[in-house]
Amino acid sequence: MPTNRRWVLAARPQGEPVPEDFRLETREIDASAPQDMVLIRNRHLSLDPYMRLRMNDEKSYVPPYALGETLGGQTIGEVVASGSADFTPGDSVIGSGGWQDYALLPAKMVRRIDPDRIRAPAWLGMMGMPGFTAWIGLDLVGGVKAGETFVVGAATGPVGSMAGQLARRAGARTVAIAGGAQKCALARETFGFDEAIDHRDPDFAKRLAAACPDGIDLYFENIGGAVLEAVLPLLNDFARIPVCGLIAHYNESASPADASPLAKVMRQVLVQRLHLRGFIVSDHFARYPDFLGEVAPLVGKGEIVGLEDVVNGLENAPQALIWLLAGRNRGKCVVALD
Amino acid sequence: MPTNRRWVLAARPQGEPVPEDFRLETREIDASAPQDMVLIRNRHLSLDPYMRLRMNDEKSYVPPYALGETLGGQTIGEVVASGSADFTPGDSVIGSGGWQDYALLPAKMVRRIDPDRIRAPAWLGMMGMPGFTAWIGLDLVGGVKAGETFVVGAATGPVGSMAGQLARRAGARTVAIAGGAQKCALARETFGFDEAIDHRDPDFAKRLAAACPDGIDLYFENIGGAVLEAVLPLLNDFARIPVCGLIAHYNESASPADASPLAKVMRQVLVQRLHLRGFIVSDHFARYPDFLGEVAPLVGKGEIVGLEDVVNGLENAPQALIWLLAGRNRGKCVVALD
Repeated sequence: MPTNRRWVLAARPQGEPVPEDFRLETREIDASAPQDMVLIRNRHLSLDPYMRLRMNDEKSYVPPYALGETLGGQTIGEVVASGSADFTPGDSVIGSGGWQDYALLPAKMVRRIDPDRIRAPAWLGMMGMPGFTAWIGLDLVGGVKAGETFVVGAATGPVGSMAGQLARRAGARTVAIAGGAQKCALARETFGFDEAIDHRDPDFAKRLAAACPDGIDLYFENIGGAVLEAVLPLLNDFARIPVCGLIAHYNESASPADASPLAKVMRQVLVQRLHLRGFIVSDHFARYPDFLGEVAPLVGKGEIVGLEDVVNGLENAPQALIWLLAGRNRGKCVVALD
Repeated sequence: MPTNRRWVLAARPQGEPVPEDFRLETREIDASAPQDMVLIRNRHLSLDPYMRLRMNDEKSYVPPYALGETLGGQTIGEVVASGSADFTPGDSVIGSGGWQDYALLPAKMVRRIDPDRIRAPAWLGMMGMPGFTAWIGLDLVGGVKAGETFVVGAATGPVGSMAGQLARRAGARTVAIAGGAQKCALARETFGFDEAIDHRDPDFAKRLAAACPDGIDLYFENIGGAVLEAVLPLLNDFARIPVCGLIAHYNESASPADASPLAKVMRQVLVQRLHLRGFIVSDHFARYPDFLGEVAPLVGKGEIVGLEDVVNGLENAPQALIWLLAGRNRGKCVVALD
């Protein structure tokens, strides 16, 4: 009977987690796998910032860890016993094995990986959930284009470094935000960012502005807080912001009543996957014929109706506008000049 | 020589415009049209909320009106003299003729309309810029789907009423927000909204919640302020918000330093056409194979690199997470269990 060590959540952290919030338990486990299950010897465990959110007892996009429960997380390991025809002992697999030596998982939740082609821990990082996060985040806002300026925080992490390299390959100028000179050097030298700015620098906002002389076209948001505040004034028209994470706020216990309104709304954008899109109709007039083609026939048939509030006389135009702004008109406000 | 009356901006309004902010001038004009120009007798002038923004001397998505300049706006009228082969006197046209009896416009900025098919003023409303605004705003966030709940403010205006009817045709439950019982009745009876809520009602937020028992999936934002505050807690996951206008704030003179942070960021979203999109990677795993197909070969060739920060020993996992949240790792944080 193998011995399984596992970390459980002992207490919900207040602010930064402390060692006492975790408890290591040891117990004997059965070395076999029931029907449709696989027993995996975990070899590598992924640690990710979102785990901090799951330690709070609050609704978020991931369910909270229960007290006393094994902490969850993605793992790479080898099958040691299989109750499924799809796996045999010795297979290298990825799954949500958690913070423990052995995991018993449903076979359908486990995927085989090829650790010879790409080194095993990379399947938890650049080739796994974090790398895919970078790729899908860019895709969801229409990608980044040649000549644009791209900015990402936590730039040496697996999400930021992948997003930066994808943006650079697309021809963008890439600016990294990272904590400390060592990480900034890593961002430039290993990951190829054009510039790297230390967010701990007292002149951070000024240096970020200097690194983005043409403004920011795509800000990949995984930080929030002071970094976001420094980014906002630099955004260009039509800037896109995939909101991927807000690590600056993760150590806040639950939703703090005193959080800034900006932090609150960004948290809602993230957790509820909101999609906000400012638009000005004049940018889109090329599609006006499409609108007419679809809607004019419906108007002709009376299936869509309109209403004009017609004010007579050019001399009454100012008063009509004053009323319009006060909400006193109904329907479309039009001045008949004669 | 015809006489042209025109309204000019006499003073920049402080808060709500007052009659003294406008001045009516009269002058004789030449009745002919130079080469490539058309002289138009304006018959209908469109009044729109965005005009208030142009009265402030500040950068926005529309250039400010100059003091003493004829106020701008869309018009419908008839060609009275043409210096272009594309137009002949008597043609019904739409253009930016401004707040005046006659407009001399470049022929290429003028478009012919058919006032017999659809009544002339409707070309300024439901069939013109406002109606198109409703259509493109829905389109830019992926449209509204059957069974969803759709909410719009200023619902009896030309944007809100068109958006509501398009949403209803798509099979959504439609909820109007409007000012006063009369407009609410109009929203229900003329425009077919399922519900209409009066934003002046002291119980507005509670009534809006009651009208949206399944939450809100698409909020077409043209109000801001207290209406937005009431909408935010009702938003469902994956809610979309085309940000079209913020009429609640238009009478604020320039960007007020004391504007709420939420109002400031919404103004930026609108004016700069920002695109914010919260996302959680697990919603998108169906596209993970696409990511692997594109990125794995690049990783194999070393064109995209990754970095893992490997901590040895399951016993060190809690400390590694604490460090990760404090930004002390670099690269992807992985625990090697052995």
